[in-house]
Amino acid sequence: MLKFWVLIQKRGDKMLYEISEKAMKLESEGKKIIKLNLADPDQQTPYEIIEAALEAMKLGKTKYSFSAGEKKLREELARIHGVSIENVVITPGSKWAIFSVMYLLLKNGENVIVPSPHWTAYELTAKSLGAEIRTLRTEIDSNWKIDGEKLKDLVDQKTRLIILNNPNNPTSKVMEDDVFEEVVQIANDKGLTILSDEVYSDLGFVKARSISDFSDEHVLVNSFSKTFAMTGWRIGYAIVKEDLAQKMMKLNQITVTNVPVFIQQAALKALELKQEIAEKMREEYRRRADLACNILSKTKLRFTKPDAPFYIFPKYDDLDSERFAFDLLENGVAITPGTAFGDYEEHFRIALTAPGEEIKLGLEKICEALE
Amino acid sequence: MLKFWVLIQKRGDKMLYEISEKAMKLESEGKKIIKLNLADPDQQTPYEIIEAALEAMKLGKTKYSFSAGEKKLREELARIHGVSIENVVITPGSKWAIFSVMYLLLKNGENVIVPSPHWTAYELTAKSLGAEIRTLRTEIDSNWKIDGEKLKDLVDQKTRLIILNNPNNPTSKVMEDDVFEEVVQIANDKGLTILSDEVYSDLGFVKARSISDFSDEHVLVNSFSKTFAMTGWRIGYAIVKEDLAQKMMKLNQITVTNVPVFIQQAALKALELKQEIAEKMREEYRRRADLACNILSKTKLRFTKPDAPFYIFPKYDDLDSERFAFDLLENGVAITPGTAFGDYEEHFRIALTAPGEEIKLGLEKICEALE
Repeated sequence: MLKFWVLIQKRGDKMLYEISEKAMKLESEGKKIIKLNLADPDQQTPYEIIEAALEAMKLGKTKYSFSAGEKKLREELARIHGVSIENVVITPGSKWAIFSVMYLLLKNGENVIVPSPHWTAYELTAKSLGAEIRTLRTEIDSNWKIDGEKLKDLVDQKTRLIILNNPNNPTSKVMEDDVFEEVVQIANDKGLTILSDEVYSDLGFVKARSISDFSDEHVLVNSFSKTFAMTGWRIGYAIVKEDLAQKMMKLNQITVTNVPVFIQQAALKALELKQEIAEKMREEYRRRADLACNILSKTKLRFTKPDAPFYIFPKYDDLDSERFAFDLLENGVAITPGTAFGDYEEHFRIALTAPGEEIKLGLEKICEALE
Repeated sequence: MLKFWVLIQKRGDKMLYEISEKAMKLESEGKKIIKLNLADPDQQTPYEIIEAALEAMKLGKTKYSFSAGEKKLREELARIHGVSIENVVITPGSKWAIFSVMYLLLKNGENVIVPSPHWTAYELTAKSLGAEIRTLRTEIDSNWKIDGEKLKDLVDQKTRLIILNNPNNPTSKVMEDDVFEEVVQIANDKGLTILSDEVYSDLGFVKARSISDFSDEHVLVNSFSKTFAMTGWRIGYAIVKEDLAQKMMKLNQITVTNVPVFIQQAALKALELKQEIAEKMREEYRRRADLACNILSKTKLRFTKPDAPFYIFPKYDDLDSERFAFDLLENGVAITPGTAFGDYEEHFRIALTAPGEEIKLGLEKICEALE
């Protein structure tokens, strides 16, 4: 089958959404699709969280409110991250926090450095704002390690931001402490801001350091989406310096106003139950990751063992991953081609956001196709 | 008392939020404040709408979804506005629709024409995007009528948008049919896009024409906030041409993702109950407006009778409305000074978003202060 995957025009950054839409379309036509392409956990939001939202609605928490977020939620997040409440801004998803920070910090023609493979939205956002993305390629063969010297070479007068995603989507790699420290040192030396997207950190199988462990000069963004299966609730937050927090609050005032208060109440309940919920989620994803690694290790695919839940990003030499993804989809399995995350044609991303049995079936079909 | 209101530094566009924050602070200190400053109805969201949200949450509608919005809600809005589903984009509040359209259509250095008095957010958004706001002044003495000739004079090579707010905040004025037609004609002749913000139209006391009655080349934005007392739910929508809808959908993908599906389900229920809910709201606001007009007509204040709910924008000759607003707040009544809506120092905005008794008490205090 492989011989048919001749190079076709690369669609790259559109692929994440294109595959997803095609999968939904096939499903609506009655076809059974095993979806290993989604960054959306199959688990339901815990019912206690839904109840907290309902209680808040009943209490009339359906009005305009503070654009930086509710005091109690900000206090709790400030406590967790060891900062002051003035450093916390609640946002409709971490994505809005990322957009806001880039909107407020980047001028037209400036550039952003992103270690690659990387999440599509960083690149699309930068482009939308007229900024340039400079990717710092990392490789499976060096365990996705960021090379500090190469990073320094990419910095010029127009560089403003470095975006880190730790643990990383799509590799599920957690940065080594010394590398993280080196990157922070480079940013500080060159006067750059680090935007550290840590949305997978609470579910990590190994402890991921946070940007806030190193310095309070930078930006941390996080989300309730992954840890609590709350993707569709649209709530995340940023930990930033007070002056940037003020600017983000003012941007919220003229754009999204505030995250619905009843959703913030639900998020507060989620934090209360965090240990229990996160532990359960982590164990489930650890089982899925072990299952997947077992199956994949019997194939010619090369991959690194995930440090965090959700993704594996294997490589198959000479693969045209876009063609592979579309063919596989016709065969009932959705994955995301590597080109969605940068120049990684021989890779594809498997998301473990489906029950174990479906993962098993899906991986068997993938292995068959690659035989 | 009036003599103390000497001119102090104008704070203008910050006043809307400054008064509101000061009022909340005084309340938190235990002071009773009659809040006639809010664009947030005192009514609760009807319980059927809350129930619809809960039902959707229970059914697991807590996942990522389409960035243009849910099919059923878009279909229903398309039916209401006589357009195709491809023309409808669901947004977290009409404010986000306005920001999106301005973000996508305006280039740095271009300008936007806004009849004044006007809602603060138009101006702040334009400024944030590096665009210029050109206000087209209207006057109480000519019943806030837009002068077509003056509008034409403001247009130049760099003009891109005209923002209409019909019914208007803060005057509650509905545009005359012939004026609306003239403005559309001017926009069409000059190749400009009209952004028509119609968030108060469903509750109007007189029928307001919609931009979609005249042409489908322009932009209509609307919201569930006012009609259904859903301000804090953050849901609105835009009716736009298909190519702009596509761009808005893509901007949603990298910013807000989607309005939570359970909130869209609640909005769908709201539309189902629209006639009943809107009728009740309209009647309540008509009573409040009558009450307020009765009281105000016995004073030296000049005002135009509101065509729509929520606001009255009276004038008191030689008033320094910022000073007046702060003094009045110390005296337990919050209003918004005219400077929040442009160069209207002698005006202030009374919002009728409080129960009748409070409106009566508040207006009495206002009259006393002005005696």
